[in-house]
Amino acid sequence: MSEKLNIALVAPLVTPIGPPFLGGAQVLLHDLALGLAGRSHNVTLFAANGSRLADKNGQTPPNLRIEEVTVKSGELAPADFQSMGENFDAGAFFRQGELFLQSFLKINAAGSFDIAHAHAFDWPAYALGPLSQTPVVHTIHLPSVDPHINAILATTYRETGRSRAVTVSEACARTYAEDFPFDRVIYNGIDTAEIPFGPGGEGFLLFAGRMAPEKGPDLAIEIARQSGRKLLLAGGIYDQRFFDEKIKPVVNADPNLDYLGPLDRKALHELMGRAEGVLFPSRWEEPFGLVLAESLAAGTPVVSWQRGAAPEIVTDGQTGFLVPFMDIAAAAEAAGKLGQLDRQECRRQVETRFGLEKMLDDYIDYYREVIA
Amino acid sequence: MSEKLNIALVAPLVTPIGPPFLGGAQVLLHDLALGLAGRSHNVTLFAANGSRLADKNGQTPPNLRIEEVTVKSGELAPADFQSMGENFDAGAFFRQGELFLQSFLKINAAGSFDIAHAHAFDWPAYALGPLSQTPVVHTIHLPSVDPHINAILATTYRETGRSRAVTVSEACARTYAEDFPFDRVIYNGIDTAEIPFGPGGEGFLLFAGRMAPEKGPDLAIEIARQSGRKLLLAGGIYDQRFFDEKIKPVVNADPNLDYLGPLDRKALHELMGRAEGVLFPSRWEEPFGLVLAESLAAGTPVVSWQRGAAPEIVTDGQTGFLVPFMDIAAAAEAAGKLGQLDRQECRRQVETRFGLEKMLDDYIDYYREVIA
Repeated sequence: MSEKLNIALVAPLVTPIGPPFLGGAQVLLHDLALGLAGRSHNVTLFAANGSRLADKNGQTPPNLRIEEVTVKSGELAPADFQSMGENFDAGAFFRQGELFLQSFLKINAAGSFDIAHAHAFDWPAYALGPLSQTPVVHTIHLPSVDPHINAILATTYRETGRSRAVTVSEACARTYAEDFPFDRVIYNGIDTAEIPFGPGGEGFLLFAGRMAPEKGPDLAIEIARQSGRKLLLAGGIYDQRFFDEKIKPVVNADPNLDYLGPLDRKALHELMGRAEGVLFPSRWEEPFGLVLAESLAAGTPVVSWQRGAAPEIVTDGQTGFLVPFMDIAAAAEAAGKLGQLDRQECRRQVETRFGLEKMLDDYIDYYREVIA
Repeated sequence: MSEKLNIALVAPLVTPIGPPFLGGAQVLLHDLALGLAGRSHNVTLFAANGSRLADKNGQTPPNLRIEEVTVKSGELAPADFQSMGENFDAGAFFRQGELFLQSFLKINAAGSFDIAHAHAFDWPAYALGPLSQTPVVHTIHLPSVDPHINAILATTYRETGRSRAVTVSEACARTYAEDFPFDRVIYNGIDTAEIPFGPGGEGFLLFAGRMAPEKGPDLAIEIARQSGRKLLLAGGIYDQRFFDEKIKPVVNADPNLDYLGPLDRKALHELMGRAEGVLFPSRWEEPFGLVLAESLAAGTPVVSWQRGAAPEIVTDGQTGFLVPFMDIAAAAEAAGKLGQLDRQECRRQVETRFGLEKMLDDYIDYYREVIA
């Protein structure tokens, strides 16, 4: 194996990879592909037709190639991890199986890849990987929600001594612990050079996330009110009825609340840097929580629950406060103390533990271990 | 590759392999395993726990090993090829996926198998095979009934230039022709040494098969009546209501009809040898039709439809008569002429074209071609 690896990245196929991103897995894949190419590895991304990866100059590096997988419109549906099993879509399932088999056969036939790294939360991708001659590893971006996925990874672990999968936090790994251990936890890395350090000091709090119940913008409003602070809310409307009933009337009636709509990442990061603190009162167990890391990178401490991956990202009392799940009063009290925390320390911790370069180091180290 | 091959046979997992057999695939697998071992190849059969393979002396040859796959009672259901898609059983589907992955990983980890030959009509088996380092080939024992199976085999053919599958007749192959070509057609072979040549001459006709509408015992009765011949019916009752309504009262009322119940193969073959002819009026397109070959081996010509694999097994006017589908009058007329045919020629054609040794030759030749 030469110093430079030939890496196949295999994307989820439900949408093309490129902005606007569907979720964290797509963002990670974008940053990983460009980061690996930036380190002179050869990267081929197997992804749905229409995928576009561009660096800061709007260019696709010459050593980053996209192998388009032709997906017809509406043929595949996003993993619906709240109704898995009940609304099983056989057409989409089998079609994904065909497309993943096609990609893995192309990777094997090429004979030139050192490793394939897949990111799809789909049973066929996990079932097909272990038999591939080119080693296949997976990043799992969602907590345990599908017993069939757990069972096929458990089979892989039992027969090979490896799950051939990593996940994005210890908290996410624990949700699978009854079935199998992950090979490693590798935290998502963020490109801190892209996020300016901000001075804070403008006294307002910020909620950044989808307008949907699971992200808890209504809880953020309650926390801000009890702490007597102004709150800005940024994020797209994913659940219109929830927004119309729980957010819009409350925001309209209170001059201390302001809804800004969806912001591009540059504007969001700049706003984060001006906030006194970011509230992250998610109702579900976040497997990572990109907003937490981005906020800290901007120098802004956070308030979140003692739940999901938050305790791995936030150092309680240093870079934010973690309070018991759904304890609004405790969150409000903590929000009042955010101004006392050291913003430079927030930035420093993210750079050390969640920097993009660290993630690239970790993945390359893992690739070499699997290939060895 | 040495002269002696190390062969992994992978069975359907819905039942153990051993008498009484569920269907033709299980019979074929039994004869193939013992036949290959008889030629001194090393055979390992991956099959459900409880599988037992014994030769004519009731012994399992030392070079035939069974690797039991633990299947819990009721966990898997037989392929229901009449309602595929409508009654999708997710639990059984994913469980089969895990068990096939387990078997293929064991085969790969062993590092000693030259080839794996699978017989399961299950999507996961077809999806997993092409990525295996140990080459995997399939025998498909059923006509085209599942578009997802066709699609995954088509993907394999498109990416590798091979379907890595054979089937048991040209007729069965034609049902898949729109999607992919088979690597080969290999006819089922029967052990003619086990079937005594019979003199015929007792003037009666015989129907052998399950008492179920698709096999057409009611049509056999109609044909026999119109030809004015006595008819014996042998076979288990698979559809009790059909038997009670369409067969039992008719047989009870007609002294020229007799239902013998299920017979063991030895008794059946002896009875075939005494019959003037065997009627095979199947309502579905038989992918092979074991009864046709067995009857000819016993020296007894047949009447069947110009349909399914029958024209490949029966030489019209020499070893039987093929008449248009559902033309009862033509079948009855043909039945009257069966006594004119040469019983030695029936035996000779089966020995030449459908003997067990020929099938073993064909499979070993195919294995060597795939391995090469």
